[in-house]
Amino acid sequence: MDRAFQRTQILTNHLLQFSPPSPLSSNACLSYSPPELSESYAFDVKEMRKLIDGHNVEERDWLFGLMRQSKLFNPEEKGGKVFVSPDYNQSTEQQREMTWKRIEHLLERGAFKGWLTEEGEEIEMRKFAGFEVSSIYDHSLFTKLGVHFFLWGGAIKFLGTKHHHEKWLRDTENYSIKGCFAMTELGHGSNVRGVETVTTYDSNTGEFVINTPCETAQKYWIGGAANHATHTVVFSQLHINGTNQGVHAFIVQIRDADGNICPNVRIADCGHKIGLNGVDNGRIWFDNVRVPRENLLNSVADVSPDGKYLSSIENPDQRFAAFMAPLTVGRVNIACSSVYQSKVALAISVRYALTRRAFSLKPNEPEVLLLDYPSHQRRLIPLIAKTYAMSFAANYLKMLYVKRTPQSNKIIHIVSSSFKATFTWTNMQILQECREACGGQGLKTENRVGHLKGEYDVQSTFEGDNNILMQQVSKALFAEYMAAQKRNKAFKGLGLEHMNKPCPIIPSQLTSSTLRSSQFLMDALCLRERDLLNRFVADVSKCKSEGESTQQAFLMCYQLAEDLGRAFSDRAIFQTFIEAEATLPAGSLKDVLGTLRSLYALICLEDASYVRYGYLSVENGASVRREITKICSELRPHALALVTSFGIPDAFLSPIAFNWIEANSWSSV
Amino acid sequence: MDRAFQRTQILTNHLLQFSPPSPLSSNACLSYSPPELSESYAFDVKEMRKLIDGHNVEERDWLFGLMRQSKLFNPEEKGGKVFVSPDYNQSTEQQREMTWKRIEHLLERGAFKGWLTEEGEEIEMRKFAGFEVSSIYDHSLFTKLGVHFFLWGGAIKFLGTKHHHEKWLRDTENYSIKGCFAMTELGHGSNVRGVETVTTYDSNTGEFVINTPCETAQKYWIGGAANHATHTVVFSQLHINGTNQGVHAFIVQIRDADGNICPNVRIADCGHKIGLNGVDNGRIWFDNVRVPRENLLNSVADVSPDGKYLSSIENPDQRFAAFMAPLTVGRVNIACSSVYQSKVALAISVRYALTRRAFSLKPNEPEVLLLDYPSHQRRLIPLIAKTYAMSFAANYLKMLYVKRTPQSNKIIHIVSSSFKATFTWTNMQILQECREACGGQGLKTENRVGHLKGEYDVQSTFEGDNNILMQQVSKALFAEYMAAQKRNKAFKGLGLEHMNKPCPIIPSQLTSSTLRSSQFLMDALCLRERDLLNRFVADVSKCKSEGESTQQAFLMCYQLAEDLGRAFSDRAIFQTFIEAEATLPAGSLKDVLGTLRSLYALICLEDASYVRYGYLSVENGASVRREITKICSELRPHALALVTSFGIPDAFLSPIAFNWIEANSWSSV
Repeated sequence: MDRAFQRTQILTNHLLQFSPPSPLSSNACLSYSPPELSESYAFDVKEMRKLIDGHNVEERDWLFGLMRQSKLFNPEEKGGKVFVSPDYNQSTEQQREMTWKRIEHLLERGAFKGWLTEEGEEIEMRKFAGFEVSSIYDHSLFTKLGVHFFLWGGAIKFLGTKHHHEKWLRDTENYSIKGCFAMTELGHGSNVRGVETVTTYDSNTGEFVINTPCETAQKYWIGGAANHATHTVVFSQLHINGTNQGVHAFIVQIRDADGNICPNVRIADCGHKIGLNGVDNGRIWFDNVRVPRENLLNSVADVSPDGKYLSSIENPDQRFAAFMAPLTVGRVNIACSSVYQSKVALAISVRYALTRRAFSLKPNEPEVLLLDYPSHQRRLIPLIAKTYAMSFAANYLKMLYVKRTPQSNKIIHIVSSSFKATFTWTNMQILQECREACGGQGLKTENRVGHLKGEYDVQSTFEGDNNILMQQVSKALFAEYMAAQKRNKAFKGLGLEHMNKPCPIIPSQLTSSTLRSSQFLMDALCLRERDLLNRFVADVSKCKSEGESTQQAFLMCYQLAEDLGRAFSDRAIFQTFIEAEATLPAGSLKDVLGTLRSLYALICLEDASYVRYGYLSVENGASVRREITKICSELRPHALALVTSFGIPDAFLSPIAFNWIEANSWSSV
Repeated sequence: MDRAFQRTQILTNHLLQFSPPSPLSSNACLSYSPPELSESYAFDVKEMRKLIDGHNVEERDWLFGLMRQSKLFNPEEKGGKVFVSPDYNQSTEQQREMTWKRIEHLLERGAFKGWLTEEGEEIEMRKFAGFEVSSIYDHSLFTKLGVHFFLWGGAIKFLGTKHHHEKWLRDTENYSIKGCFAMTELGHGSNVRGVETVTTYDSNTGEFVINTPCETAQKYWIGGAANHATHTVVFSQLHINGTNQGVHAFIVQIRDADGNICPNVRIADCGHKIGLNGVDNGRIWFDNVRVPRENLLNSVADVSPDGKYLSSIENPDQRFAAFMAPLTVGRVNIACSSVYQSKVALAISVRYALTRRAFSLKPNEPEVLLLDYPSHQRRLIPLIAKTYAMSFAANYLKMLYVKRTPQSNKIIHIVSSSFKATFTWTNMQILQECREACGGQGLKTENRVGHLKGEYDVQSTFEGDNNILMQQVSKALFAEYMAAQKRNKAFKGLGLEHMNKPCPIIPSQLTSSTLRSSQFLMDALCLRERDLLNRFVADVSKCKSEGESTQQAFLMCYQLAEDLGRAFSDRAIFQTFIEAEATLPAGSLKDVLGTLRSLYALICLEDASYVRYGYLSVENGASVRREITKICSELRPHALALVTSFGIPDAFLSPIAFNWIEANSWSSV
């Protein structure tokens, strides 16, 4: 009533004091014109979306619809459109409860049907699609689902055996129990082998005794632990008869069905975070908690009732690697979801740049659209190309994962590590650039772009710190090199076959058509990877010959290792782009994709490493930059179509992507 | 009581079930060792602090103390230490009220005494120091003070005349009134000339009539408008007899003393933001609000009682520039405060890296301290060098500002623009790197590092979008070049005198001692600036000779403009570093500073532009990188001393900078 009164009063004042508008003011006023009116689509955006989403397009749209239609997803009208997004101004406790209610809603509607009880490629791809869509709504929703289904559920699946599957998977899928994943400790994150939680076996009772011997052994960052989880998988050293058998995983109940914390378990909150406040991260201490022998997830090792340690894998390193298996799919999910955040941010900032103007070139001329500035094109359009490239690479990674065999474990580990690091770092760069490109509007939470930065920053360090993952990639390439050399055999696998061929030669003068040819671009990417691998091997070997340990040698050659990791990643991503392009018939779709493909690779070639290591001469480096500028202006007319093809429904974008004048008008206050 | 009961129960359970610790567990446990125990100071950190703080060290400490001692600043004990920081888990409304209460508290203690009523260099430097300290506590506190004192107060001071000063300055200083600054509109941010608010003059009543003719003309992002401000300066087109005289500034009361919004003024909230939620940003519509003729801030132009427009500045461009004067000191403040955020983040992450370990090089060896990894040194130590460089440059900028003369306006504009852009971008990079270097702990709000990113992101686009500021720098250098050429005179000012000398020559082989000599480093920085300026002038001229307008030519040469802006900035910053170094007597302080100075410049030389434009050969580029690595390891033993010298009191750092094990222990839950 107060509000109605206030508005009536304002209106009355306005009418009473009304003076005719000054003759200049009506001309001067800006108006909103939808970008669709001025821009046209030169290719079929639905086809393009199918190509980049890659799979389960209908299921995605079904899930989008489910979220758009429920009040729980917080629909709000702005500027004549409805947007769904959590209310991030709520307290941490409220945000957590809302995340949980959204999960319940999706559960009731059957969104997770078969996620743990069905097998096969089809359900795995459906699951990936569902996850990606959940991440577009909110990172907390995604993370809370991921912890339950992929970490807890994945641990049961990959580390458990038949009786665990029978006992836990259905109950997990229907949320009769709520799982979490207690691996990280206060004192140990990336170095999982160093966890300090200790489990012993009591053969008198047939129980394991799990203990947190010191403060740094407290489980930390455990998503779900602070409020909701009833069960957890605990990663702990297993001490049998005084021998440490290394890290093993155990199931422990931490809350009863009423939500009371179980005896001998202590739980505390991790507190407020810069993002993900809809996830209840907690800390857990175990005070000699006793669990039945069967609670050891025993796919790789077991303890007999009388307390003998039995393992099918003798080598402790391999045994440890087997325990890390659930993390791989986590990395796949993280990599794929980060690409969708880039899509959201680019769709918003490109649409805004097609409706927001600033500065006139001449007095009394209309101001220039942001995206008509060459510098603005140069900021955003290469990021579109990167996002397309990452989309194809993400689809490749998912297929690699669902078609996994024991032989493909190595490549999955390496590709998922390098893509997870590359995509999440690139996503953060894209979000930052998009936020700045939207100016102050990029800082409003409702506009999403800036907010996503705080939400997704965690991706660079969780489930494997990016720097460490990239070091692992380089080490793996090193090992591959040494193995090939030792056996005097050709390179095979990891895409390194190009090492068997003669070194490509970069022409001394690069024409526009050369710069856009996929053969040249692939040669240039392979050339860098090959040379950096050779240098890395040479430098590590030199360090070793001077008496350093292999580990120490790797640490000292970190700079080459970083450059090599990036070179591997860029080349592997480009490979997937070329393969996606090859599936298309000639036509407008293929044409624009070919241009994007060239742009993606040229952006890689613009990296300092190309001039720094001399792969490109100064002149060739300048040609690369010029060609990028040219392509940006060629792609400018396709900008709207390219971001529309991302297939993000309007309700999942934000007010500045549409009529931001109306959304900000007094009538909408 | 519940809590006490729960803890007793836990303790009882613990005692009942107590089993002797396994023989391995006590050895395995990590413990905290303060970095001060293992690291030593090779130079006087107090002297160093004096040098980099530059001025008003005692006043700074007094203000730190004032905040540390008040409950309003939310002191919390963690790990045996007290930290002060706002509770960012509070709602937006609560955060705004707390910001305001903190200001009241500081006001009562005399923290702002003389800020607007005293004149001279001494008070201006004291004000800068006070601002910097407030920013170390919280960006909302800093911003809310900045809007009131520098934007509102500055507008009165710079744009008003005697009667405005008499009427408003004392009341502003003692907060009898609360000011805000209504320049930005929904439709116009960086392009202030395009604002759509319209003011006419009614000679019958002797009043100005201020109107918001359309939605895009609503004032937007106005800090203080949503809750607290009583008065505002409105920037508006002034229409006199049908002629638009351009943007002018008017004082308008928007709330009465009881906080009620004034008639014909409408105000709405800007809503939740990714940071700065302690500032009440609002939107304002003016419905033909009438203010007395005296409310025009008339230092550059006036309207006579009978409605004649009078201005001492004929040229509308110059008149407009005069109206932008209050923004200059805003940029100085923003630049300087961003350096202090880098200091906070580096102090925290270096201290953490000196107490956090990860991975052993050999089995059973202790894990390695993060800062003993060469790669971790390479991540953090160059950032320390950058922060020292920015500190000296900030001190230079402040002195330039307080010693301003009409002749120095140009250089102040250019230097403040380039430093504001460079420092705020660099600060964001430093915060990001520090957050990742702290791993997951970097994401906890209480640890500050990650949280500062959301708080300070706004600095890249407010009070001049960084990209636009950097374009202005390049345009100014272009104008300087053209003027020198036209008059056939030597370059003078802006540090461009080196252009008058022969072009420096880079030796074909760079030894370690050359790479550390300030002469060589300065030559290399000047060489790049000179060449990029020559190229920029050539390219712009070429575009113009092909028929483009000057504006269009600038737009097309944006890439050179960006590179040139950075080159100017890096060189100008380095100059200030050398000058600071020159003030020191020989000794340990000068030695370590010399090493930092070389590191700073080498990091600039590592920029891709050096190999891209051929200033450094591939071999020389590699030498630069090698030397950087070498210096990082040389500076490793000084890391603690270097961040201690930042002079940030412990209470303004965060738990991970100290005993983070105790801070996370169960007893502190």
